[in-house]
Amino acid sequence: MVASEFISELRQRYGIEFNDLTILDEAFTHSSYVNEHRELGLKDNERLEFLGDAVLELTVSDYLYRKYPDLPEGKLTRMRAAIVQTRSFSSFSKEAHFDQYIKLGKGEEQAGARTRLTLLEDLFEAFNGALYLDQGRGAVIKFVEQVIFPHIEAGEFSAEMDHKTALQEFAQQDGDVQITYRLLGEDGPAHERQFHVEVAIDDVVLGQGQGKNKKAAEQAAAAAALARLKQA
Amino acid sequence: MVASEFISELRQRYGIEFNDLTILDEAFTHSSYVNEHRELGLKDNERLEFLGDAVLELTVSDYLYRKYPDLPEGKLTRMRAAIVQTRSFSSFSKEAHFDQYIKLGKGEEQAGARTRLTLLEDLFEAFNGALYLDQGRGAVIKFVEQVIFPHIEAGEFSAEMDHKTALQEFAQQDGDVQITYRLLGEDGPAHERQFHVEVAIDDVVLGQGQGKNKKAAEQAAAAAALARLKQA
Repeated sequence: MVASEFISELRQRYGIEFNDLTILDEAFTHSSYVNEHRELGLKDNERLEFLGDAVLELTVSDYLYRKYPDLPEGKLTRMRAAIVQTRSFSSFSKEAHFDQYIKLGKGEEQAGARTRLTLLEDLFEAFNGALYLDQGRGAVIKFVEQVIFPHIEAGEFSAEMDHKTALQEFAQQDGDVQITYRLLGEDGPAHERQFHVEVAIDDVVLGQGQGKNKKAAEQAAAAAALARLKQA
Repeated sequence: MVASEFISELRQRYGIEFNDLTILDEAFTHSSYVNEHRELGLKDNERLEFLGDAVLELTVSDYLYRKYPDLPEGKLTRMRAAIVQTRSFSSFSKEAHFDQYIKLGKGEEQAGARTRLTLLEDLFEAFNGALYLDQGRGAVIKFVEQVIFPHIEAGEFSAEMDHKTALQEFAQQDGDVQITYRLLGEDGPAHERQFHVEVAIDDVVLGQGQGKNKKAAEQAAAAAALARLKQA
């Protein structure tokens, strides 16, 4: 069965208590462990992974849809793809210490499977599949609010956003701020007009940009401000 | 706004009444229509399609997970892929008469977009995204129980199942039946043993099969019976 330290850790860190511990156990049972202990008639975590994958996809999609009401579908799709990929899920899995509790066969353990990114990704999905079966989607949302959403809010996936949205995300991490764009002027011949814009956060000017229209100049100013904030 | 015939049809066929008709309208607004009527400031259905895609993925996954408790992950994944593909979603879209109500720009209408499979697929997803936002996932499950699940139960996606499961699915469409496999005998030298099995449904023998073990012979018998039933 699942280690009792893990059960305590889930309760203390995430407020999660499983009703059915056999389903939690299944989520942490790798196929290599099942194969080495055929006499126990165990189930591996692959079916839960199938289910958890879909639960996470909807949970992340719903969050992005509501959080970015002005982001077009193409950008939402790229952002979702960046969040639900192996590299992200495996790091969330480690962050939640799941890697310490997966049961592996000896051969796989020696081959270093415990740190394999795809194994950690599958484990993250299987855990969420188990949580969904045990307690419904609300429990998955609550867990993901602690483990995934803070990374999105910290701007880790904002390469897919436009610079103005990304700046707003980044600047508002620690509370509401006022972001203002001001047109400084325009110059150049009619067919090659250049617009100059500056951006300020709470009246502190943080960047300037130029472009062939006001919108492009604002995007450039936002990118400059964002680069400066991230260096700070 | 959405045609009133469509509102009645949704109510009569599926028992669905939207609280927020603007969200239903958005689901039936193609980007080509928005582009031709910029003065109206409409939204196209692409963000709803993003959301609906994920809602349908979970709804189908949850159904398959519970309905086929013995199907391994690989087969569940292939079956899900067969169900959520363009060809299937576009046919569900037509079955629900969605193609009659999508608002298209004139150019796209003339180019035959109304019957384009990817457009119908996107529309099916957008409708389910709208239904989910308006009434929650329970309403999507209820709709999908009428529009998708009967096709699964009729065995349309059972190429991904093993033959025994597929036979059971097919035979039980019209109520419970008793399927029995009987070992007729075995022959051949020890290293090339052949097993012979027959399968009967409610005591009527429908097929025979052979194989190098009992399980393989049963699968062959099930495939034979299924082929015969589908011809009938």
